[in-house]
Amino acid sequence: MPENVLFGEKLANAIADYGQLCVGIDPHPWLLDEWGLNQDSLGLESFGLKVVAACSNRIGIIKPQVALFEHFGSEGYRALEKVIRAAKEAGLLVIADAKRGDIGSTMNSYLEAWLGEGSSLECDAMTVNPFMGAEVLESLSPFAGSGSKGVFVLTRTSNSGSELFQNARTGGKDDSPTVALEIYRRLAECNAPLTGRFGSFGAVIGATSQLAGSGIEFESTHDSPPIPILAPGFGHQGADYSAIKANFGAAAGQVIASISRSVLAAGPGRLDASIDSERERLAEAMS
Amino acid sequence: MPENVLFGEKLANAIADYGQLCVGIDPHPWLLDEWGLNQDSLGLESFGLKVVAACSNRIGIIKPQVALFEHFGSEGYRALEKVIRAAKEAGLLVIADAKRGDIGSTMNSYLEAWLGEGSSLECDAMTVNPFMGAEVLESLSPFAGSGSKGVFVLTRTSNSGSELFQNARTGGKDDSPTVALEIYRRLAECNAPLTGRFGSFGAVIGATSQLAGSGIEFESTHDSPPIPILAPGFGHQGADYSAIKANFGAAAGQVIASISRSVLAAGPGRLDASIDSERERLAEAMS
Repeated sequence: MPENVLFGEKLANAIADYGQLCVGIDPHPWLLDEWGLNQDSLGLESFGLKVVAACSNRIGIIKPQVALFEHFGSEGYRALEKVIRAAKEAGLLVIADAKRGDIGSTMNSYLEAWLGEGSSLECDAMTVNPFMGAEVLESLSPFAGSGSKGVFVLTRTSNSGSELFQNARTGGKDDSPTVALEIYRRLAECNAPLTGRFGSFGAVIGATSQLAGSGIEFESTHDSPPIPILAPGFGHQGADYSAIKANFGAAAGQVIASISRSVLAAGPGRLDASIDSERERLAEAMS
Repeated sequence: MPENVLFGEKLANAIADYGQLCVGIDPHPWLLDEWGLNQDSLGLESFGLKVVAACSNRIGIIKPQVALFEHFGSEGYRALEKVIRAAKEAGLLVIADAKRGDIGSTMNSYLEAWLGEGSSLECDAMTVNPFMGAEVLESLSPFAGSGSKGVFVLTRTSNSGSELFQNARTGGKDDSPTVALEIYRRLAECNAPLTGRFGSFGAVIGATSQLAGSGIEFESTHDSPPIPILAPGFGHQGADYSAIKANFGAAAGQVIASISRSVLAAGPGRLDASIDSERERLAEAMS
């Protein structure tokens, strides 16, 4: 894949070739144990490279969980750098699940780390935490505004208690937009000047979240280019692939369905078959 | 300082010995240039070690900005590890400004990275982003709940546009608590079972923020132990030390006043004098 392809096009190609499945690279301590790997940077590297090899030519998108590498400091990051490099060489689209959020030149450093051309950690996209406000979204423009790289901004997560802040009302009234809706609208605005099959400003919206409370309505959106939606929470975390059409409606084709533990817990020996099976189940639910 | 001293006591001792000033270690690219250092991990390391040496026996608390080290990947983290080690050897209390926020075992990995005993990045405290909800605060208990390590949770930041999400109403009505107030109250609850001169659940509240809109009232709080308040935004970012008594009232003694650019821009040759001068100006404003 040539380097100058825009993020939205890379994503569209990955989905056209392999469907909407994304596999998380989540080397949790208990998974390293189960895989017979050491709790160190060599264990992380071996785990990550095995997942990359299994995903190669089987799916199009992977999502390394940065926290689990950061756990081991600079050595953990060295392992992550090797895993990212291997994934890119295998033609996979890589979303760093880093959930970074800051403002101004500090946020720019995070973006340079994860999306900067030639950075040792360079990925195709990263997840972003918008808690500090509109300034966070504005700071993403140098990377996502050109379409060269993707960002997935936490919008409405599916974890317990997430509604407290994400469904809070920005105007302080019953009918004011929620925090989640405000973020979603702004992402659509950010994508509006772009062209292509997907925008580069994406949203993280949990597959199991109670979208009704957020005020986001996928049925009524005709965003162009469409917002890519990263939806974690499949498999182990409770959502079935049927939730995609049920929850995301007209935007179901924009969903990247991320699965981690239930595939990874199959163990290294059954990983290929487990990924094949999930990809097929997802394709069936989307057909 | 013995290793088993609780975070709140370490903080109280640092403030008793040196006052409430905290110096940020923020190796922005333009500062590296001004200091005559290279834009690489050696430049970062040299910058950080110089700031640590200047702070040693002059102030009690430092706050490395993690983003600026992450910019350089695993090599940047290796430099940060050396800076953190030097700071601890110098007896400084180290707050990692990482703004990490996730849930469950993933958040636990971030906490292990920055606060875990024996971790290569081990600090005394870290900043946390609560956007994902109450579950983020709950995940902090294994570290901050014992009082062994500190956490500073983003509550009401001072950047432009931050009110949009942080002053949103959690109950959807005019008189519902704001997101910021809800966080502040929960931090007080988390500290309630602890003893000592400071709690280990702290808040990040910008020195220049419009606190009125958040509903947080420092005059009426009699939290025990008190919430430590990390207040960035002094100097370059616009706040004067007089803002501490003016904005934080009865909680002024709980404030850690963080200053970065205006001290660092003095350059390596004038750093000692610049830190002395800020410490004295702060002490005067607090007297």
